[in-house]
Amino acid sequence: MSAVSLAGAPVAKALRAGIADNVARLASDGIVPALAVVVATDNESTHWYVRSIAKAADKAGVDCRIIDLGPTASAEQLKSTLSELSEDRQTHGIILQTPLPDGVQADELVPHIDPGKDIDGANPLSLGRLAVGLPAFAPATARAVVELLVHYDVPVEGRHVAIVGRSAVVGKPLLHLLLERNASVTICHSRSRPLEDYTRAADVVVVAAGRPGLVTERHVAPGAVVVDVGTNVLEDGALAGDVDAHSVEQVASALSPVPGGVGTITTALLLLHTSVAARAAVEAKGPLVSSGTVRSIR
Amino acid sequence: MSAVSLAGAPVAKALRAGIADNVARLASDGIVPALAVVVATDNESTHWYVRSIAKAADKAGVDCRIIDLGPTASAEQLKSTLSELSEDRQTHGIILQTPLPDGVQADELVPHIDPGKDIDGANPLSLGRLAVGLPAFAPATARAVVELLVHYDVPVEGRHVAIVGRSAVVGKPLLHLLLERNASVTICHSRSRPLEDYTRAADVVVVAAGRPGLVTERHVAPGAVVVDVGTNVLEDGALAGDVDAHSVEQVASALSPVPGGVGTITTALLLLHTSVAARAAVEAKGPLVSSGTVRSIR
Repeated sequence: MSAVSLAGAPVAKALRAGIADNVARLASDGIVPALAVVVATDNESTHWYVRSIAKAADKAGVDCRIIDLGPTASAEQLKSTLSELSEDRQTHGIILQTPLPDGVQADELVPHIDPGKDIDGANPLSLGRLAVGLPAFAPATARAVVELLVHYDVPVEGRHVAIVGRSAVVGKPLLHLLLERNASVTICHSRSRPLEDYTRAADVVVVAAGRPGLVTERHVAPGAVVVDVGTNVLEDGALAGDVDAHSVEQVASALSPVPGGVGTITTALLLLHTSVAARAAVEAKGPLVSSGTVRSIR
Repeated sequence: MSAVSLAGAPVAKALRAGIADNVARLASDGIVPALAVVVATDNESTHWYVRSIAKAADKAGVDCRIIDLGPTASAEQLKSTLSELSEDRQTHGIILQTPLPDGVQADELVPHIDPGKDIDGANPLSLGRLAVGLPAFAPATARAVVELLVHYDVPVEGRHVAIVGRSAVVGKPLLHLLLERNASVTICHSRSRPLEDYTRAADVVVVAAGRPGLVTERHVAPGAVVVDVGTNVLEDGALAGDVDAHSVEQVASALSPVPGGVGTITTALLLLHTSVAARAAVEAKGPLVSSGTVRSIR
């Protein structure tokens, strides 16, 4: 068997059509969806990534403002920036970009992002709302996995999905997105041994552990679908997933590549979420307000 | 094999010792921990249950105030009551008791419970904080399962736990409590078929599905530990779990009874949480405040 490649590009393209639709509808109300990205680092690759979001936003008709507070920004500065953006009616989506300055904890900052503008699902309230089935934005990477599966007609209802990795940005929110779609879900991690006992029982295996080559053919049941969320930068600068593609593609029926898979979809989702947040704000005839009163934001 | 019975009473007794310790420490600061239970129904069994909490509170040295708004209370009345209690420095724990009046949605009310006083984990922010590992109160029933396992030295680290049921009050928060303890966790539900394929793979099976007799011996691997969270009232008024105890105790190494198991522990946890919330408020020299700034509340 040689696995079908689940490329992200066609998924991103379909999502961009959805963004264009939202942008056009908003234009008829005189609104341009606006994303604010808050940065507080001099890390080169972060700035490269943020500029790539800004370029994609520009192409999509989404206004993108980069608010660079510099690598010495204080927690107080970051908090007040996030609070101001949360209250600003001209801003529809907010991203707090990591890494943060030394000693500044993201945990203290993300509650200041209005859940209605929390388009990368960073506020724990967004995760809690997602978990109980209330409208909320999932982290783009977690939703990207679902969009990939949906695009390629991989069913999850009534099927067994194993997630390797329990992070707050992928594993945990993805678990809730999949439960909502009536999958049975196993969440395993570095303490799950032997890992193959868990992953081989699954119809779909999603790997988001941050360990290059962690999952090999012995971890995958014949015919299973494997989604690789890993984005590991190797010593030579190359990007590698968490899956040993060469061996896994011999047993899996489908496998998402790295690069070119899940990672290709996330920026489109950030912009889609921003356009959805803008539409929700317009339709509610006012700014989205915090906790509990967020209006429909899907 | 005949399964060991995992009775809840000794667990509740141990928890009451913890409450007594907190109550004594608070007394030296002149503080009596105070719980407010908001009720808006004329349902007889709800009132019976709430009185049972009040009696247990009285015995434990916890002040318990029942705020009965009656079965015709409006959402606005309930919201403002919860907001006032959240701001009231004399109140340390808040429970919003269900059922609610017709047309009133709990979803709209629970965000008004300060997470620092949300001692039954009803606010989605509490679940989100729990999920990302921040201090938060879990729903008492979910934590009761963990306390039962800990009390009887049932290890979960590195072991496979299957949870049957995905509710916001048991399955989902329990999943996060177990992940934090390094268990691998499978969450299954009514769409998981055949159910035994999921449950038989597990070292520990927790059943919280609300269907009497759902789990039988064929669902359980020999020697597994089974925790029954079901509390189903049968036609004859008897209380039945989700587990067919007669058959499961032939294969399981341990089984929690119904009645007399998990349900026995929850009231003690509500009071323990209230005493912990009171201590946190005292130690923080002021009221706990909402989202993001909740101080240590474990």
